[in-house]
Amino acid sequence: MTNSKIQLFTFWRSQATYRVRIALQLKGIDFEPHVINLLKGDQYSEKYQKLNPGAMVPTLIDGDKPPLVQSLAILEYLEETRPSPSILPSGAENRAHARALGQVVAMDAHTLVIPRIRGYLEKELGLDEPTRIKWIRHWTETASTALEGILAGDPRTGDFCVGDTPTIADICLVPHFVSTIMLFKNDLSQWPTAQRIFDNCMKLDVFAENHPLRQPDAA
Amino acid sequence: MTNSKIQLFTFWRSQATYRVRIALQLKGIDFEPHVINLLKGDQYSEKYQKLNPGAMVPTLIDGDKPPLVQSLAILEYLEETRPSPSILPSGAENRAHARALGQVVAMDAHTLVIPRIRGYLEKELGLDEPTRIKWIRHWTETASTALEGILAGDPRTGDFCVGDTPTIADICLVPHFVSTIMLFKNDLSQWPTAQRIFDNCMKLDVFAENHPLRQPDAA
Repeated sequence: MTNSKIQLFTFWRSQATYRVRIALQLKGIDFEPHVINLLKGDQYSEKYQKLNPGAMVPTLIDGDKPPLVQSLAILEYLEETRPSPSILPSGAENRAHARALGQVVAMDAHTLVIPRIRGYLEKELGLDEPTRIKWIRHWTETASTALEGILAGDPRTGDFCVGDTPTIADICLVPHFVSTIMLFKNDLSQWPTAQRIFDNCMKLDVFAENHPLRQPDAA
Repeated sequence: MTNSKIQLFTFWRSQATYRVRIALQLKGIDFEPHVINLLKGDQYSEKYQKLNPGAMVPTLIDGDKPPLVQSLAILEYLEETRPSPSILPSGAENRAHARALGQVVAMDAHTLVIPRIRGYLEKELGLDEPTRIKWIRHWTETASTALEGILAGDPRTGDFCVGDTPTIADICLVPHFVSTIMLFKNDLSQWPTAQRIFDNCMKLDVFAENHPLRQPDAA
């Protein structure tokens, strides 16, 4: 029996799931959400780990195909199976550029600040809250500065990260800066190019409506 | 003036560059290496940061095109521009599976153990060596266990991670386990499926010859 609607295992606060929600809405793909409450440990249930042995969100199930994990792999999958509108620019070097920009925040910042890392810093290393917050701020800002360095110096930078329509780069940039703002009440003015792009994105419903605080499961 | 040969900015110990070296050799692409000694801080030179504002390796330059950064984006670029032999399986869900397997080690393990993280643990947090090594081991092994969980339960697992030829998944798996072995003298028997695949890869010159310790700049 095939369930034709995409199933998305999601959590409101997850940056990685926010990326996938943006891509789904950009492409006009309807989906059924299933909340995995990371704060309650839902990700460690036997049932969920059968879908996602890494015990993370998101997981996406498309019909009777095997579950898909890892947000960046899921974005590529959505692009391959529902190519229009595209979330990658044309030209191999431009696609590499868009992917790299996404990875600067997804790999070099987000991976370092997810709940299980914060948990290790607190419980295994016994770090106090100011030290943990300093860690999060350091890696978040290091990635923002790298992102600004790439965007500011590149002639391909337009209204969005690569040209004038949103790509995978913007889909990663927005959740990154939304987290920055939620955590640190930062304005983004030290990264002016990235800030301008972020503001352009947030004028679009697809980025604004998928904001973590606008999710039904948000605290 | 176009330099027709690919330029690769590399460091022997870098897992991310090892991935790119494997892909280049698999595809029979000749390249000119430029050593960026991460231990001496070459990555922070003004000249290098113009190519790579994130101050990381690898960077790849293909002719007169802009520099490419982020190893996973570079792998996709090589696949798009030199598609044969392919490092992605056929079928969108299989490609997503291969990419996700690669990301499990590249994002969820490697990012947490690179030199700048180790430096922060030591210099900013003042952690002693056993505690730093425990950190590295914890995240490395967590990813290995997630990888084994996915590989062991999936009918697509063959001689390699996805089927019977090497893909982007194996290109990420091998540097991950090479690092595990170099750091912890581990045998990999607690991850039997991954170990079998690793052994199959290391029988191939392309994986063996690009081993960190076989690079001209290795200590």
